[in-house]
Amino acid sequence: MDAHMKKKNHKMIKTDILIIGAGPTGLFTVFEAGLLKLKCHLIDALPQPGGQCSEIYPKKPIYDIPGFPEILAGDLTKNLLEQGKQFEPGFTLGERAETIEKQEDGSFIVTTNKGTQHHAPIVAIAGGLGSFEPRKPAIEGIADYEDKGVEYIIKDPEFYRDKKVVISGGGDSALDWSIFLTDVASEVTLIHRRNEFRGALDSVEKVGELTKAGKINLVTPAEVKELHGEGKIEAVTVVPKDGEAFQIETDHFIPLFGLSPKLGPIGNWGLEIEKNAIKVDNSLNYQTNIPGIFAIGDVNTYPEKLKLILCGFHEATLMCQAAYRIINPGKRLVLKYTTVSGIDGFDGSRKEAPKAVVQAIN
Amino acid sequence: MDAHMKKKNHKMIKTDILIIGAGPTGLFTVFEAGLLKLKCHLIDALPQPGGQCSEIYPKKPIYDIPGFPEILAGDLTKNLLEQGKQFEPGFTLGERAETIEKQEDGSFIVTTNKGTQHHAPIVAIAGGLGSFEPRKPAIEGIADYEDKGVEYIIKDPEFYRDKKVVISGGGDSALDWSIFLTDVASEVTLIHRRNEFRGALDSVEKVGELTKAGKINLVTPAEVKELHGEGKIEAVTVVPKDGEAFQIETDHFIPLFGLSPKLGPIGNWGLEIEKNAIKVDNSLNYQTNIPGIFAIGDVNTYPEKLKLILCGFHEATLMCQAAYRIINPGKRLVLKYTTVSGIDGFDGSRKEAPKAVVQAIN
Ligand SMILES: Cc1cc2nc3c(=O)[nH]c(=O)nc-3n(C[C@H](O)[C@H](O)[C@H](O)COP(=O)(O)OP(=O)(O)OC[C@H]3O[C@@H](n4cnc5c(N)ncnc54)[C@H](O)[C@@H]3O)c2cc1C
Ligand SMILES: Cc1cc2nc3c(=O)[nH]c(=O)nc-3n(C[C@H](O)[C@H](O)[C@H](O)COP(=O)(O)OP(=O)(O)OC[C@H]3O[C@@H](n4cnc5c(N)ncnc54)[C@H](O)[C@@H]3O)c2cc1C
Repeated sequence: MDAHMKKKNHKMIKTDILIIGAGPTGLFTVFEAGLLKLKCHLIDALPQPGGQCSEIYPKKPIYDIPGFPEILAGDLTKNLLEQGKQFEPGFTLGERAETIEKQEDGSFIVTTNKGTQHHAPIVAIAGGLGSFEPRKPAIEGIADYEDKGVEYIIKDPEFYRDKKVVISGGGDSALDWSIFLTDVASEVTLIHRRNEFRGALDSVEKVGELTKAGKINLVTPAEVKELHGEGKIEAVTVVPKDGEAFQIETDHFIPLFGLSPKLGPIGNWGLEIEKNAIKVDNSLNYQTNIPGIFAIGDVNTYPEKLKLILCGFHEATLMCQAAYRIINPGKRLVLKYTTVSGIDGFDGSRKEAPKAVVQAIN
Repeated sequence: MDAHMKKKNHKMIKTDILIIGAGPTGLFTVFEAGLLKLKCHLIDALPQPGGQCSEIYPKKPIYDIPGFPEILAGDLTKNLLEQGKQFEPGFTLGERAETIEKQEDGSFIVTTNKGTQHHAPIVAIAGGLGSFEPRKPAIEGIADYEDKGVEYIIKDPEFYRDKKVVISGGGDSALDWSIFLTDVASEVTLIHRRNEFRGALDSVEKVGELTKAGKINLVTPAEVKELHGEGKIEAVTVVPKDGEAFQIETDHFIPLFGLSPKLGPIGNWGLEIEKNAIKVDNSLNYQTNIPGIFAIGDVNTYPEKLKLILCGFHEATLMCQAAYRIINPGKRLVLKYTTVSGIDGFDGSRKEAPKAVVQAIN
């Protein structure tokens, strides 16, 4: 386990179960933990919850979520957030969990790449295929402009209000953000190294319309080859496939070449790793080789493991029981049906089935 | 394993996975098996699918089905049937799986209490808390009238068209069927040993209204004490708590005192039983001590087992993979995402996500 330096100037976030990864598995953990009166906080490298479902295929249908003959991945995320809402989860979004330190009392402190610290007796790694990291274009000196006009992920579109933006990429993200930002930015340029875009039909068509209407400045086939500016981006050099290089003035250069998941720092936490996943004891409750650290969902492996959403739900549920017993040693835990016992939210809300009456008829 | 006599006069039902129990676990198995091109047939003692969800609490909300902040148990059943529909499951309803015989080739023949025979290489026991058996009133000679005017479960309400019925019981079943049959039967009498009924408020109120309107003949507090008739029910003797006994002419006497689940015959199949449940290997794929027989959902037990619907879904999914490998020895099985590969129903239907286009904009 690493013991990197802590930044003392951040306040410590405390919770019962610290969940690394806000994909479907992490989100459902909030609900199951809440039933046991355990509070959760989630860390995710992405700016929004949902994991692969929201990052890779939010508008596509999933057919094998039990009870849903069909549900869009984005709607599943929305539903899971709604289901856990009354248990008031905390979120540290847009940050990557970087280091973990075991404390003398057996609890853990997890610190992100931005220095945010989290303290919890239980850590549930629900990191999927790893933390989503942007694929970066090979442009000289681009690292120097990061957060100085170069962004690989759009966290808050308002950030681009009345700014000039150059987006580069040929997939759904590049298409959809170009469309969206026409209403926000003062100027939108979309550059792609091919003429053909790959995405939802209506997104491709919409970009076509906005281009005709002069709202998107489309440059294809072409690539951004140089960045210019003192201390922040001021212009980019565009090289068309068959033509002369030219410069475009801009406040932002946003390459949207997709995100790829990397197990990353978690790989160095002293956990047993097999096939790029964390080995767990599936005969009990998905604990890793380090007591108090569990791994659930796509991130774990065991004999006959299936990387399916519905499996993460089951794993999360069994894990929460184990977490309860660690946090409340000696206390008896009796399974209660939600239908019979109802749900008491941490926000004071209560859900319950209508009660049967016992009533005479006369 | 029993080797009871087979009834030769029944035709044999053949399938890939024979599922005993059509509760939520059994129903979802149909879907997961279908994805692997395996066909399922389900046996259930109840006249309708859904297990506990449809028999005990169809109108109550469940809060812990992942992705559903709230869903009525009856709607969950409906959704699961819809989700599996394109894989065309077969059903043997209203019959109890009674005996199992292992064949020389390793496959199994399962025979019900009505003599229906089923033949499959894989048996998945999804029997929940057991087969639902009616609680019978202690009335002398009642067994002689079974299926001769005495029924403990209403399978098909049309059976009572223009007949006189006497229903007895004080819960939701007695209330709801009394209401329903007012539109079907020629005469409905409801007898309960207390004045107070226990059920949904609107059912109790509706029975009150129908009684006032003369459509239900309500007799409380009272009990049916004797049955009369030659070869079939013709009348019952009712004894009010404070009053003279009297007879009511009727074609049917339907005591609805609830169903209670009994593991029953499955307990004698040579399976390892613990705490009234079937022991399985949860570190792999929920196989029992008899190769080819699996136990999934509420009916199984293993360390840290939780009798929850969502756990049955996971168990069913892993079990289907094992079933596939037994049925297709040596064939490679690659996990396919439904979102990516779509679903091909056995009925020729196809579901698939809208494909991305690759298209130039000009
Ligand atoms: C195109 C596609 C189609 C699919 N179709 C289906 C389907 O039909 N059915 C199905 O069941 N499954 C499907 N899947 C798989 C399904 O999406 C995954 O099983 C599911 O998302 C796993 O959920 P999870 O919560 O375990 O992990 P993920 O969804 O991967 O979420 C993990 C999260 O953890 C974060 N993270 C990881 N490490 C760190 C760190 N160190 N710090 C901060 N954050 C971190 C990541 O950024 C990510 O957001 C599909 C996947 C894809 C890509
Ligand atoms: C009031 C109540 C509230 C509940 N609330 C919740 C909740 O909020 N969340 C939750 O997850 N769970 C809840 N449950 C539990 C949930 O209903 C069960 O976990 C679920 O029904 C189990 O599904 P199953 O398919 O494994 O078995 P079951 O639903 O029990 O179905 C098994 C079926 O097998 C049949 N069967 C058994 N043996 C035989 C045989 N030999 N021949 C023919 N048929 C046979 C039975 O007739 C039955 O229909 C609740 C249960 C009750 C009673």
